[in-house]
Amino acid sequence: MATQPDVPSLDVPLSALLRVPPGPVDLGSYDCAATTGYPGEKDGVDERMTELGETLSQLQERLFANGRTYPDTAPAALLVLQGMDTSGKGGVLRHTVGMVDVQGLSVAAFKKPTPEELEHDFLWRIAKEVPEPGFLGTFDRSHYEDVLVSRVEQLAPPEEIEQRYDEINAFEAGLVARGIVVIKCFLHMSYAEQGQRLMERLERPDKHWKYNPGDVEARQKWPAYQDAYTVALERCNTVAAPWFVIPSDKKWYRNWAVAQLLAEHLQGLNLDWPAGDFDVQAEKERLSRTFETPARK
Amino acid sequence: MATQPDVPSLDVPLSALLRVPPGPVDLGSYDCAATTGYPGEKDGVDERMTELGETLSQLQERLFANGRTYPDTAPAALLVLQGMDTSGKGGVLRHTVGMVDVQGLSVAAFKKPTPEELEHDFLWRIAKEVPEPGFLGTFDRSHYEDVLVSRVEQLAPPEEIEQRYDEINAFEAGLVARGIVVIKCFLHMSYAEQGQRLMERLERPDKHWKYNPGDVEARQKWPAYQDAYTVALERCNTVAAPWFVIPSDKKWYRNWAVAQLLAEHLQGLNLDWPAGDFDVQAEKERLSRTFETPARK
Repeated sequence: MATQPDVPSLDVPLSALLRVPPGPVDLGSYDCAATTGYPGEKDGVDERMTELGETLSQLQERLFANGRTYPDTAPAALLVLQGMDTSGKGGVLRHTVGMVDVQGLSVAAFKKPTPEELEHDFLWRIAKEVPEPGFLGTFDRSHYEDVLVSRVEQLAPPEEIEQRYDEINAFEAGLVARGIVVIKCFLHMSYAEQGQRLMERLERPDKHWKYNPGDVEARQKWPAYQDAYTVALERCNTVAAPWFVIPSDKKWYRNWAVAQLLAEHLQGLNLDWPAGDFDVQAEKERLSRTFETPARK
Repeated sequence: MATQPDVPSLDVPLSALLRVPPGPVDLGSYDCAATTGYPGEKDGVDERMTELGETLSQLQERLFANGRTYPDTAPAALLVLQGMDTSGKGGVLRHTVGMVDVQGLSVAAFKKPTPEELEHDFLWRIAKEVPEPGFLGTFDRSHYEDVLVSRVEQLAPPEEIEQRYDEINAFEAGLVARGIVVIKCFLHMSYAEQGQRLMERLERPDKHWKYNPGDVEARQKWPAYQDAYTVALERCNTVAAPWFVIPSDKKWYRNWAVAQLLAEHLQGLNLDWPAGDFDVQAEKERLSRTFETPARK
């Protein structure tokens, strides 16, 4: 029996509250400033995050330990982060993912495909970054860009993009079959909030490096992007790999919600510390004998 | 002029205190429990680490920002961690490296080479993990294993191992020439301390996964390993990429010392926030116009 670290329990698991129900999706019906499932007031969020970080770190260490011991068969977890510019993919990585041990993390960011990547199927570069057994992998943007920006900007023929939804579902089902828990988060931010955040980047010279004039062009196509997200959330919302919508206008809530989701999913693996494949007592005696040997030539 | 985050200043930079002087190395003359350069008492170490973590995180963000803006020419940093089992390579990753944003990290751990890796030159697998411009890369073990375990266990002919020191120096000089700051740390722990730490792993079921009976075999060859480290520290202690010896019997000191070394080296890059290649005022006006556009189709 695995004794699991306690994940702060909610009346209803956050996974159940934020999971996108099957069927049509209406992104406009979501309140991006909601704090769904968050118990109490924002005031307590620092303490709550510290506590959740401890739990997350313990759960992830168990995952890592299992990966070390069973390198071919241990499970893994994959956090997929999607959202418009400034929705907080980087913030979640820094503040939430950053709470676990870097040794067990694999962090991938998918930008505009390189010429080499474009020569291959769109999943080629993605497959290379799938986390190894025992790892928590994170995707900052992902294969979904190939049905988001590609759809809005018409970077591929419509019939090709049509096929990609099924290819994505098959790909993700394959990951799940290999023991990889897939947690797909859409960081849902309002149009007004994005405007404020982009303006802040322009107002602070230490944030200029994060600003790209192309961000405004994408903003001007906001409705088309929301439509593209809607289709992706409807067509790739499988039982094996469902979508979660994270209200992301409040950064503190967004960071907490992803942490809580991660903790719930890692706890769901129900992992124990791996037993050693050695005789503990015999090893203690063998080690004890070395204490008497002076460390000299 | 770059205004740099303040690195807590010491009377003498820690880099100068811990750097291995040119010439013969006598590892036996080092006190593994020393707290060289640490100001004040251990009691203050938590606050000091928090403060240093802030600084480190700010310095690393500047490095990352430069990498994003100048992806071909920005500098990078590489932290090489070497030391006997339990000396704390993992602890430094968790507690020191873990203080910076995971987005700008690349973490590599080198274990027993795979059959594919053995088919190539020993530097082949290393070169693949060299950090990209803007990244802080970490090596948990490294190319030095090929002159350490390979020497002690005679995994290659002596004349081949002889050649590797020069090959390593040429390789590292190449990294430095590309703008990569190389920080090589030998976590120097005493024989007695290793015995205690291995015993603790045996006594705690949640640590059994970290224990390997082979660790005791390596311990029984302690003098041979110390000799191999001595040769590596003598022959690969170049001006471009010097060695640092970190007294590592005290975990709190070890973690602080590596953090301080990292901060001093990143500060030495003297990086400013990259300027945007756009007209800030024009972008503000362009963005402002989008505020009036309702987000509708």
